[in-house]
Amino acid sequence: MELAAATAGETTKRTRSGRPQRREGGRRSLGVPYIVRNIPTYDILGEESLQRIERTADRILAEVGIEFRDDPAVLDHWRRAGAKIDGVRVTFEPGMLNEIVRSAPSEFTQHARNPARSVEIGGGNVVFSPAYGSPFVMDLDKGRRYGAIEDFRNLIKLAQSSPWLHHSGGTICEPVDVPVNKRHLDMVYSHIKYSDRAFMGSITAEERAEDSIEMARILFGADFVDRNCVILGNVNVNSPLVWDGTMTKSLRAYARANQAAVIVPFILGGAMGPVTNAGAIAQSYAETLAGCALTQLERKGAPVIFGNFLSSMSLRSGSPTFGTPEPAIGSMVVGQLARRLGLPLRCAGNFSNSKRPDAQAMQEGVMSMLSAVHCGANFILHSAGFVDGLLAMSYEKFVMDTDFCGALHSYLAGVVVDENTLALDAFLEVGPGSHFLGCEHTMRNYQTAFWDSALSDNEPFEKWVEQGETDMALRANRSWKKTLAEYEAPPLDAAIDEALTDYVTRRKNSMPDAWY
Amino acid sequence: MELAAATAGETTKRTRSGRPQRREGGRRSLGVPYIVRNIPTYDILGEESLQRIERTADRILAEVGIEFRDDPAVLDHWRRAGAKIDGVRVTFEPGMLNEIVRSAPSEFTQHARNPARSVEIGGGNVVFSPAYGSPFVMDLDKGRRYGAIEDFRNLIKLAQSSPWLHHSGGTICEPVDVPVNKRHLDMVYSHIKYSDRAFMGSITAEERAEDSIEMARILFGADFVDRNCVILGNVNVNSPLVWDGTMTKSLRAYARANQAAVIVPFILGGAMGPVTNAGAIAQSYAETLAGCALTQLERKGAPVIFGNFLSSMSLRSGSPTFGTPEPAIGSMVVGQLARRLGLPLRCAGNFSNSKRPDAQAMQEGVMSMLSAVHCGANFILHSAGFVDGLLAMSYEKFVMDTDFCGALHSYLAGVVVDENTLALDAFLEVGPGSHFLGCEHTMRNYQTAFWDSALSDNEPFEKWVEQGETDMALRANRSWKKTLAEYEAPPLDAAIDEALTDYVTRRKNSMPDAWY
Repeated sequence: MELAAATAGETTKRTRSGRPQRREGGRRSLGVPYIVRNIPTYDILGEESLQRIERTADRILAEVGIEFRDDPAVLDHWRRAGAKIDGVRVTFEPGMLNEIVRSAPSEFTQHARNPARSVEIGGGNVVFSPAYGSPFVMDLDKGRRYGAIEDFRNLIKLAQSSPWLHHSGGTICEPVDVPVNKRHLDMVYSHIKYSDRAFMGSITAEERAEDSIEMARILFGADFVDRNCVILGNVNVNSPLVWDGTMTKSLRAYARANQAAVIVPFILGGAMGPVTNAGAIAQSYAETLAGCALTQLERKGAPVIFGNFLSSMSLRSGSPTFGTPEPAIGSMVVGQLARRLGLPLRCAGNFSNSKRPDAQAMQEGVMSMLSAVHCGANFILHSAGFVDGLLAMSYEKFVMDTDFCGALHSYLAGVVVDENTLALDAFLEVGPGSHFLGCEHTMRNYQTAFWDSALSDNEPFEKWVEQGETDMALRANRSWKKTLAEYEAPPLDAAIDEALTDYVTRRKNSMPDAWY
Repeated sequence: MELAAATAGETTKRTRSGRPQRREGGRRSLGVPYIVRNIPTYDILGEESLQRIERTADRILAEVGIEFRDDPAVLDHWRRAGAKIDGVRVTFEPGMLNEIVRSAPSEFTQHARNPARSVEIGGGNVVFSPAYGSPFVMDLDKGRRYGAIEDFRNLIKLAQSSPWLHHSGGTICEPVDVPVNKRHLDMVYSHIKYSDRAFMGSITAEERAEDSIEMARILFGADFVDRNCVILGNVNVNSPLVWDGTMTKSLRAYARANQAAVIVPFILGGAMGPVTNAGAIAQSYAETLAGCALTQLERKGAPVIFGNFLSSMSLRSGSPTFGTPEPAIGSMVVGQLARRLGLPLRCAGNFSNSKRPDAQAMQEGVMSMLSAVHCGANFILHSAGFVDGLLAMSYEKFVMDTDFCGALHSYLAGVVVDENTLALDAFLEVGPGSHFLGCEHTMRNYQTAFWDSALSDNEPFEKWVEQGETDMALRANRSWKKTLAEYEAPPLDAAIDEALTDYVTRRKNSMPDAWY
């Protein structure tokens, strides 16, 4: 498979290699709104094995089934669709769900309030979004503590400032200093206020999902929202084989509004699923397929993203482990299966069990992030920030990860083969035993030739000593402080800002604080 | 492409998934002699692009040519083979070198003195070998200093003690406290004495190559050596497009003795080759192909390994950079080209420009190492230890990298799809909303289910604090000291040891010390 060289968007000048131009007068440009991959997906299983996994998922769905709890409207949907219902347990004839999801788009646009930053989700497109959902934050100065709304805003500002992310994310950390029933209002407002990229709304209760969508309507206009995707909701299966009412109600709220639900089972092998990869993948496939189908029953044609999150377990301690080889390689198979369904794919991003922005953090982070890139994920949640399993956002790791996302822009550009890149003219000019430093081909190409990390140390040892013997964590610490100090909010229409603020105030005043 | 599940060797019990059993009575077993990959290679370019690169290499070879300096016997070889000679510049008709290398084996055994540790090089096999050639060593206690013979021995002991390497390597660091003209004798002896795995000999002068091979003859017997590969020599092209006499003489010494030369251009894009990947790959292909062909002219059928080392450059400082995206993705193409030639492949391993065993070290290390694994490399030199470009071996990074090599054993085992791994019985037993912790399928499979790192922290945060808030570098520091303290040399026949010691002494006494 060979894809056309192309990089999305119109905000950046392009080189003939299709790669974004990273330097203009010595400064980095602002990257691209999303990546169009120029390398194929890494397909590790053959047809027979894929079919065996699909047939196993069929049997799980037909012989074991899935429980849909506390949401009778879901059972009505399934009944009308012809599934078998026994209490809250629903079983499905083989092929039934595959048929239902055919109405979901294989690719859709999520609009950002800055149209130049809208993202295409699906096909050969790749969107990097920050990590999501950790209760804690940490940095080298203050250590670990519960996330606060100030951290929430800081992390959005850091994301917005990075040219190498494409999306503002959702619960970038839990702002635990805001009442749990009002949090979503401050979160959605912060995404709109401090970022001009696309973002995600709340899913922790149906009314919070609806608040999120309503705020999007204030921003984009109700008609536009009914016709276009402007907000995502990340809903989790309660694996194994249970969908809770809270999640299905939020899922349906997003679908009903023509907004995209991201359907994600979190399967910790050995606990919420089997310890063997093939079985966990079959389960993940079955659970996600059911969620995707449900969006189509709620509103035929609503956008939906096929997600997964495979994880492993330490056999010594029973703790979950992250960034390990089995989920990394398993994700490739999930990617193959999602493409066979024709659905956009969300996969595992950059995470680690380390409690520090150290070697372990990036070893596990890079293994998992490359897996997400190789498996063909279109929407990569958790692209930046996670440490301590999924429990903490590290300010330092956040900027390390965004820098690595920059490297992945070059990686996904692949190897371009054309007359210029083959450089025969350079060999004829330079010949044996000389060097290419000043040759015409080098002068013509060097500005876009290589990824140039802002955080990696590439100095000679002696110069590194002179400069204070820093490690990457310390450089990252300096980097996020500088970025926050220099941050400027993207302009937001004053009338919209006021309408949003009014909405938030009104909704907050309508309910007492709840803290759990 | 789907490969049969299989893991090589007979020293370890196998599970039904073909994966080495890592725990026996709670202890790790000793891994496998080498890996038989159960995932396909990651082929990123299509036929047309590959042909364009091959045709460019043909034109470089025909229109620019390669200089072969200070070794008239090489020019005689080329003359007899029908190449055009102009001074030391040799040009080749398209297809001529491809025809010559057809006599080289696509796969061969390199014998270890412990037969259970012999390695198969080529095909779907993967051999991990330590980093090679750095003048410096460093650790957290003593910082950076020149390598000494004690470091050389220590690093061999650490390699030998890791179940996740398969090869003892060669110049694991430069022992600069030994005269430069005698170093190779101590190095080869140390490999034989402190490891029972396969190893590499000297290439820095023809007589040193011959000493290395002669010592292998003492170990294995001269007849055996003439019929079997027991030692490798890693020879470098002086890119661009120059082969120095020192290298071709060593190359020919290995080939003449039926031992395998590893042919490696080191191309720093923008300096020793073009700044664009496609051109650097074409150059690398041309240079390596010429070296491989030369081995066949010296001795038809001699084993040879097609190598490459692509690198990039910081546009800010002009320094070489390592573990960056362009070489990582370029290696995939080199792998495709080597397979089209039917030659075993050596590719880039685990290296970094960091001066510390920190986040940068593993970010760059994992990106480069995964690239070597994905591109189909059969012999991965530099699998463990490098920091500071190629200049230093870090004791801590060495054990981090060997631990990561362990993870890659699980990664390369891929996703096994069979009745056991599909786990339908587990779903039927557990059902929705329960857990898999104690189910029959979990009990049957958990011991081999997941990679369990010896260095990663997977504890809850509070327990990590209790245990001293370590980072991975500190844990690695403790690990290598413990390993060295517990190291026991593998038994070596006393008569052979004496004969080797005699040879080393005699050779050392035959020449004055040279220090440069």
